[in-house]
Amino acid sequence: MPLVAVVMGSKSDTESVQPTLDILTQLGIDYEVSVISAHRTPEKARQFGLEARSRGIEIIIAAAGAAAHLPGVLASWTTLPVIGVPLASSELKGVDALYSIVQMPAGIPVATMAVGSAGAKNAAHLAAEILGLKYDKIRQAVEKHRSDLQGEGK
Amino acid sequence: MPLVAVVMGSKSDTESVQPTLDILTQLGIDYEVSVISAHRTPEKARQFGLEARSRGIEIIIAAAGAAAHLPGVLASWTTLPVIGVPLASSELKGVDALYSIVQMPAGIPVATMAVGSAGAKNAAHLAAEILGLKYDKIRQAVEKHRSDLQGEGK
Amino acid sequence: MPLVAVVMGSKSDTESVQPTLDILTQLGIDYEVSVISAHRTPEKARQFGLEARSRGIEIIIAAAGAAAHLPGVLASWTTLPVIGVPLASSELKGVDALYSIVQMPAGIPVATMAVGSAGAKNAAHLAAEILGLKYDKIRQAVEKHRSDLQGEGK
Amino acid sequence: MPLVAVVMGSKSDTESVQPTLDILTQLGIDYEVSVISAHRTPEKARQFGLEARSRGIEIIIAAAGAAAHLPGVLASWTTLPVIGVPLASSELKGVDALYSIVQMPAGIPVATMAVGSAGAKNAAHLAAEILGLKYDKIRQAVEKHRSDLQGEGK
Amino acid sequence: MPLVAVVMGSKSDTESVQPTLDILTQLGIDYEVSVISAHRTPEKARQFGLEARSRGIEIIIAAAGAAAHLPGVLASWTTLPVIGVPLASSELKGVDALYSIVQMPAGIPVATMAVGSAGAKNAAHLAAEILGLKYDKIRQAVEKHRSDLQGEGK
Amino acid sequence: MPLVAVVMGSKSDTESVQPTLDILTQLGIDYEVSVISAHRTPEKARQFGLEARSRGIEIIIAAAGAAAHLPGVLASWTTLPVIGVPLASSELKGVDALYSIVQMPAGIPVATMAVGSAGAKNAAHLAAEILGLKYDKIRQAVEKHRSDLQGEGK
Amino acid sequence: MPLVAVVMGSKSDTESVQPTLDILTQLGIDYEVSVISAHRTPEKARQFGLEARSRGIEIIIAAAGAAAHLPGVLASWTTLPVIGVPLASSELKGVDALYSIVQMPAGIPVATMAVGSAGAKNAAHLAAEILGLKYDKIRQAVEKHRSDLQGEGK
Amino acid sequence: MPLVAVVMGSKSDTESVQPTLDILTQLGIDYEVSVISAHRTPEKARQFGLEARSRGIEIIIAAAGAAAHLPGVLASWTTLPVIGVPLASSELKGVDALYSIVQMPAGIPVATMAVGSAGAKNAAHLAAEILGLKYDKIRQAVEKHRSDLQGEGK
Repeated sequence: MPLVAVVMGSKSDTESVQPTLDILTQLGIDYEVSVISAHRTPEKARQFGLEARSRGIEIIIAAAGAAAHLPGVLASWTTLPVIGVPLASSELKGVDALYSIVQMPAGIPVATMAVGSAGAKNAAHLAAEILGLKYDKIRQAVEKHRSDLQGEGK
Repeated sequence: MPLVAVVMGSKSDTESVQPTLDILTQLGIDYEVSVISAHRTPEKARQFGLEARSRGIEIIIAAAGAAAHLPGVLASWTTLPVIGVPLASSELKGVDALYSIVQMPAGIPVATMAVGSAGAKNAAHLAAEILGLKYDKIRQAVEKHRSDLQGEGK
Repeated sequence: MPLVAVVMGSKSDTESVQPTLDILTQLGIDYEVSVISAHRTPEKARQFGLEARSRGIEIIIAAAGAAAHLPGVLASWTTLPVIGVPLASSELKGVDALYSIVQMPAGIPVATMAVGSAGAKNAAHLAAEILGLKYDKIRQAVEKHRSDLQGEGK
Repeated sequence: MPLVAVVMGSKSDTESVQPTLDILTQLGIDYEVSVISAHRTPEKARQFGLEARSRGIEIIIAAAGAAAHLPGVLASWTTLPVIGVPLASSELKGVDALYSIVQMPAGIPVATMAVGSAGAKNAAHLAAEILGLKYDKIRQAVEKHRSDLQGEGK
Repeated sequence: MPLVAVVMGSKSDTESVQPTLDILTQLGIDYEVSVISAHRTPEKARQFGLEARSRGIEIIIAAAGAAAHLPGVLASWTTLPVIGVPLASSELKGVDALYSIVQMPAGIPVATMAVGSAGAKNAAHLAAEILGLKYDKIRQAVEKHRSDLQGEGK
Repeated sequence: MPLVAVVMGSKSDTESVQPTLDILTQLGIDYEVSVISAHRTPEKARQFGLEARSRGIEIIIAAAGAAAHLPGVLASWTTLPVIGVPLASSELKGVDALYSIVQMPAGIPVATMAVGSAGAKNAAHLAAEILGLKYDKIRQAVEKHRSDLQGEGK
Repeated sequence: MPLVAVVMGSKSDTESVQPTLDILTQLGIDYEVSVISAHRTPEKARQFGLEARSRGIEIIIAAAGAAAHLPGVLASWTTLPVIGVPLASSELKGVDALYSIVQMPAGIPVATMAVGSAGAKNAAHLAAEILGLKYDKIRQAVEKHRSDLQGEGK
Repeated sequence: MPLVAVVMGSKSDTESVQPTLDILTQLGIDYEVSVISAHRTPEKARQFGLEARSRGIEIIIAAAGAAAHLPGVLASWTTLPVIGVPLASSELKGVDALYSIVQMPAGIPVATMAVGSAGAKNAAHLAAEILGLKYDKIRQAVEKHRSDLQGEGK
């Protein structure tokens, strides 16, 4: 049963979220993937948010570009932690998505990552760090990965 | 029965939308005012969007600062024209709200106005121009206002 | 007789406004297309603005890059709703056009769309939403399109 | 007979253009002052531009904030040199006015100055440098002023 | 024993992190507060990061302005989740801190919040959402708070 | 004898100033071209500025990218009108050059053009408008060009 | 005999460079202070740059706002290390000065500090670090200061 | 024995620091090159900073993109002069790295260079100017290089 739900705003974002999926796989974390547009399919976003916790999801990762309301809209429908990844898919090259995702109002946080592929990877790493507080095996995978990073640096 | 619904994201935005209300009154257009947070009260936003047309509303004006998802979220729940007013209420001084409101994805437009009070006034003017296509009295009020502007310039 | 006039600042913007024309066609809305430079052909812009309503035009969509005065200049000559599409045609990649179009002074609104192709499409969608207030057939086309979007999201 | 026409977009800009007037006076250059809105009084802007040269005006200085189309609109109606001063009167603090004024399309230049009071002063200095090419007395005033600046620096 | 460590870069940031402390208190979450400069006291930052988990800390919230390396530096010394709050304390008004905090490289995430007080509050809310995955009482406090927000919106 | 001096900061800017030269040629204005770096060859810049007027030059056009001090440095050594063209040659894509050129302090103006090729063309057009105040033949060329533009727009 | 020359672009910058002077005094480094405008007094800037090394100056600290050419112009006249401090004195709040100072072309570096008072202080600290390579007493003062900072953090 | 240590944040930055190495070689300055990530290998960064002076290093040049904490982190561990080169390696194209590197807090300076290759070259030039204060041969190389630049400009 997946602990992490990865949601993208459009099928055209598939390549952009691949780094998230790769890192989750590498760290041994089960996930599911959905395409939900906050604007074109708001009812689907609502159902997804309302039901995520009861389906066993513990963390939602949402990637979106341009107005990039998806992470914030999902966060409005759930009290699970939501991690947002701004994509550089519009002419404004991700500054728009970054501001839209990070500047959430008090009460409804979105954990915002870097624009683009570094952020897509870090969404998975943050999810692992969070789940590692509860699941020892994931914590060990996180620590092994960090230790491996340090090895590369030697 | 109000033709225009003015919605603000927070009661603290009351002063910011006052110019909208003043212009609507000046042009003789009935309106209603609501406080709805896209994030704190998403169900209220949904109901508002889903029912607006059947209640006789023809245009929604939504003002919000920071992540400013309100206009886009309302637009996701209705096919009425939505006019968005970015407010300079965060540390980023309205650039965040502008990008969040204007960069909507294809299919779900928000008619974006200037940041702050000029935009708040123009939301009412645009609403009047739109309604003027259908209601002759409003068109006349719009044209008289424009003509008065030109007089001031003499 | 066209209800919507699509105006571009330069022939080189033809490709940029094509998405507007495609959506208008798809929604069954008659339109006309013109090339008018606010700066190189100001008299043409003036005549266009002054005569648009009497020719039966109900909405003007204007796309421009760089200083992008076209939508605002047309708005100064008419009280029809003007929808502005900022194009990323200069070295500043559309931020210039966005600010020039959206920051209109009180009294002369321009309904501003996203920079580039999403904005070009949404100009047509907004025009349709506005016309849908008056023309039932267009409202039905808008609602069918929105409903189709939701279907794609399933 | 004034050689320089100073134009502001709104009476509220009076204080912002005062430095321009002060420098022109200091350099002994005759000027006139007008309030013309490119958007609210486009016909007045057109007449002003079309008649400026025949009235003996040699340089137009136009100051405006926000969308700041005034310098570009005047430039579209005349082939006199137009100097633009961006004002920081909107929430975007002059970046909007700067981009709107400076990013003019090929064929219709506006000589853009710094945002705010330094720009307002320099509009007068540039006008004097230009007129100094033709009027020896103004050239001498310009050179004396520059020489005085150097004296201050000693 | 505190679950959350709140760290600020300078004593002058005390007022800026107060909203974080208020929300943590309101949600019944134990916390500790430290002043650590990533640059002036790097050894202290290192010790703090290396020992945090073994001291029982589960989440680190770090607030900083300007170059704002603090959250990233702490994240480099621990695999606990680090939440970063950009402060608008420099002349660049928080854009610098936002970019410094959010643009972390792959492998070392920082969960970035909004600039300023909304972000300071949301750091606490996100911490609560994360801890709520593991501690039922905190989850209940989160859900009650969200439910109260919705009540305010009625 | 050339009336206009076109100066570029580096030989690598040759292509960027070509549009300036083309327009000057088209309008029948004599010009000279130099490569002078404000930073690498400051003495050459100084001599150029100090001697320009006595050599018969009436207008200096200077194009530069990045820190782009060239137009301002030349302006510091002469009281001839200096026109600055910001080039998008650095990683910051011309915003740096624009700010460096346009934000000149009171007393030493630089007439700033758009970033890139539109600005390069307009530097020539502005020079022609300025020279047209004094030389009737150039004024006629300017007016014919403007008239031709209007013809293209028909 | 002073080792460090502190130069400001205008007398109005006196308050802005005071932190530089305070830190230099605190670290026991002799300095001199001058007011030199790169644009209003270019000959003074040139003489200053050409003579600095022979007068015994080892480091130049230059603070300037807006177009902020001063550090780069001084650097063009000397091969001494030049440290630049961008001041937030214009409407663009220091972003203009930062870009103008930091984006120097290859061959003529300026060591750029933070905008405003942090940068003014760090100009002195960097000067001390540089001089500390050569003067043991200054190195000791630098190390003592750093050690004191760490003490404050305890 | 190398006087200059060149450090990059990732092996993928090798090409970006090559201009630094080329200029150092050209000026006859011994250097060493390391790959150290401030975030992935913080212990390595700490050891490097703590030991650099005793190993004979006099200047550290650090190049990094995105959050770009490397120069500041190294500066926190040493009182040697640190020169930072912002790289345009992220979606935000170097503005992020520039702000992260330049906006250092009082007490811990980083001498910031231009974004990208001009900055990479200038890091070497600045290092040479600094070392030239102490090593006559390097000063001569700096002065010869500057003189050659002027020759190119003739």
